[in-house]
Amino acid sequence: MKKLINDPENVVNESLRGLAAAHPDLVRVHFEPNFVYRADAPVQGKVAVISGGGSGHEPMHGGFVGNGMLDAACPGEIFTSPTPDQMFEAAKATHGGEGVLYIVKNYSGDVMNFDMATELATAEGIQVQSCLINDDVAVENSEYSQGRRGVGTTVLAEKICGAAAEKGMSLEQVAQTCQKVNANGRSMGMALSSCTLPMKGSPTFDLGPAEMEIGIGIHGERGRYRELLKPVHEIVQTLAEAVIKDLPFRQGDQVLAFVNGMGGTPALELYIVYMELAQICRKMGLSIVRNLVGSYITSLEMQGMSITLLKMDDDLLKLWDHPVRTPGLRWGM
Amino acid sequence: MKKLINDPENVVNESLRGLAAAHPDLVRVHFEPNFVYRADAPVQGKVAVISGGGSGHEPMHGGFVGNGMLDAACPGEIFTSPTPDQMFEAAKATHGGEGVLYIVKNYSGDVMNFDMATELATAEGIQVQSCLINDDVAVENSEYSQGRRGVGTTVLAEKICGAAAEKGMSLEQVAQTCQKVNANGRSMGMALSSCTLPMKGSPTFDLGPAEMEIGIGIHGERGRYRELLKPVHEIVQTLAEAVIKDLPFRQGDQVLAFVNGMGGTPALELYIVYMELAQICRKMGLSIVRNLVGSYITSLEMQGMSITLLKMDDDLLKLWDHPVRTPGLRWGM
Repeated sequence: MKKLINDPENVVNESLRGLAAAHPDLVRVHFEPNFVYRADAPVQGKVAVISGGGSGHEPMHGGFVGNGMLDAACPGEIFTSPTPDQMFEAAKATHGGEGVLYIVKNYSGDVMNFDMATELATAEGIQVQSCLINDDVAVENSEYSQGRRGVGTTVLAEKICGAAAEKGMSLEQVAQTCQKVNANGRSMGMALSSCTLPMKGSPTFDLGPAEMEIGIGIHGERGRYRELLKPVHEIVQTLAEAVIKDLPFRQGDQVLAFVNGMGGTPALELYIVYMELAQICRKMGLSIVRNLVGSYITSLEMQGMSITLLKMDDDLLKLWDHPVRTPGLRWGM
Repeated sequence: MKKLINDPENVVNESLRGLAAAHPDLVRVHFEPNFVYRADAPVQGKVAVISGGGSGHEPMHGGFVGNGMLDAACPGEIFTSPTPDQMFEAAKATHGGEGVLYIVKNYSGDVMNFDMATELATAEGIQVQSCLINDDVAVENSEYSQGRRGVGTTVLAEKICGAAAEKGMSLEQVAQTCQKVNANGRSMGMALSSCTLPMKGSPTFDLGPAEMEIGIGIHGERGRYRELLKPVHEIVQTLAEAVIKDLPFRQGDQVLAFVNGMGGTPALELYIVYMELAQICRKMGLSIVRNLVGSYITSLEMQGMSITLLKMDDDLLKLWDHPVRTPGLRWGM
């Protein structure tokens, strides 16, 4: 295992220290329990949008804390759910009197712990709603989830709900917006290589020198099948077809197309993926009105990518375009 | 070799098509000869800032084209210098009557070809100056360069000179600003793994399973030495000491600290590197007034990172903070 780390046990804490040191204008980090929160929190009169999950997916979620996106993010250990006290303390530290939305990726540990945090916060008099993201069309159940896994759409939901909260929408409205994003977003990914957990030191799974895994999860969970590596246009066709058929996306739909790198795939290749995806969308009569290309929900140093399509309307477009200023996503201010 | 590509011969062209498709509001791509240029070029009454070099280092340079940074970028084949006609045509297409600055990384092919392009453009009546970036302290000469290689400082020079041009400075002033950035910037990098050229299909060099290369170049050129992998705090100490000693940076200096990923290293690890670098700077009495953490000048899917320090003053700070809007770097608009 080759990683730029010190002690495998301190990877998450040290990376959080780096994040805090690099972006003091945007975020603060609270330790024990760990959470990243907006430097100007709590923002009075605004719904607080909070997410969290295992670490190893950076910039998600800690890199999405800031004006126009998350109020707080709760990082667990690598690929391990954060604990209810992290989520509860994050809610206490950042809520501004208008309630809290928890955005939860559908993994059993996350769901259970955000449920407990919701109880704790509610008992404290904080109004909480939570919204589940389960957009991965690859598999119906998986090693860590009942039902579909939450993947790429999470990034889009955090951006869009952050904007909704910033614009002064109520908790009910922000939660409905999140459900709408989840209902209209679909994803699927693939991997060329495994990733290696720092504490384990060996690859999570083995792929042959000419193999790829189609439908991979962001923790290296098995997907649909393995096969020999193909030209990228065939790979993108496979993923895009599965995604488009599932919603289904229909001719004339306006979509946001998100090409996401898994951490170890360079931008050079992601733009080739985007070129292929744009061609497929054109052929299918889908109009790409916005896009995002980069490594935003990653799986440590895994090589691979995922595709997310989100069906857009005018309301979602306005929220997407709203200014955002976080370590990992920034425009308009 | 596992890459998300179609034909190895078309990697650069297809990636450029993806870049153009993803960012039509920011850039256009001209093919044969290939160059990326601002969607609103030529901008009349402004110095045009142009760079270029081999592909495989994305987002540099094509991802840095846009308002507040480059007017054009000339991508060669992977790790291969662009040709003089690319640079010449880019100058013709984007100059706005106030001259052109070529920002050139110090590699023999780039230097020769930008020199020829300068002659061609001058003969055409376009005023051209060029500025060499040679900030890599690792080695004094290398496989592809006479003198020091141009690496991380290039990113900072492109941002700062782009701002200078946008603010209406003259060609002379923009060129002087570029020389000042180069004179005050120093870098050094390291690698945990090699990268693989698509056309070659096998790694550029071999590193043992527990080895790293200190002082690596962005084309996989040999650096200073190989040794067994160490904890990241020792690695950062080695690089930072070499960089600090070279300028030298002195107690009380204000610096921009740039932690750059080589393409295959995830953000999680880059922030640990930043944490270590911030501690070293504090101990040495250097005040980090700005920072940049991410994969900006890469080497395909290489795992590794580089550190750049740039000594700042009020003028450079103002230029750094000026709004920028490109596919790869964006703030303030």
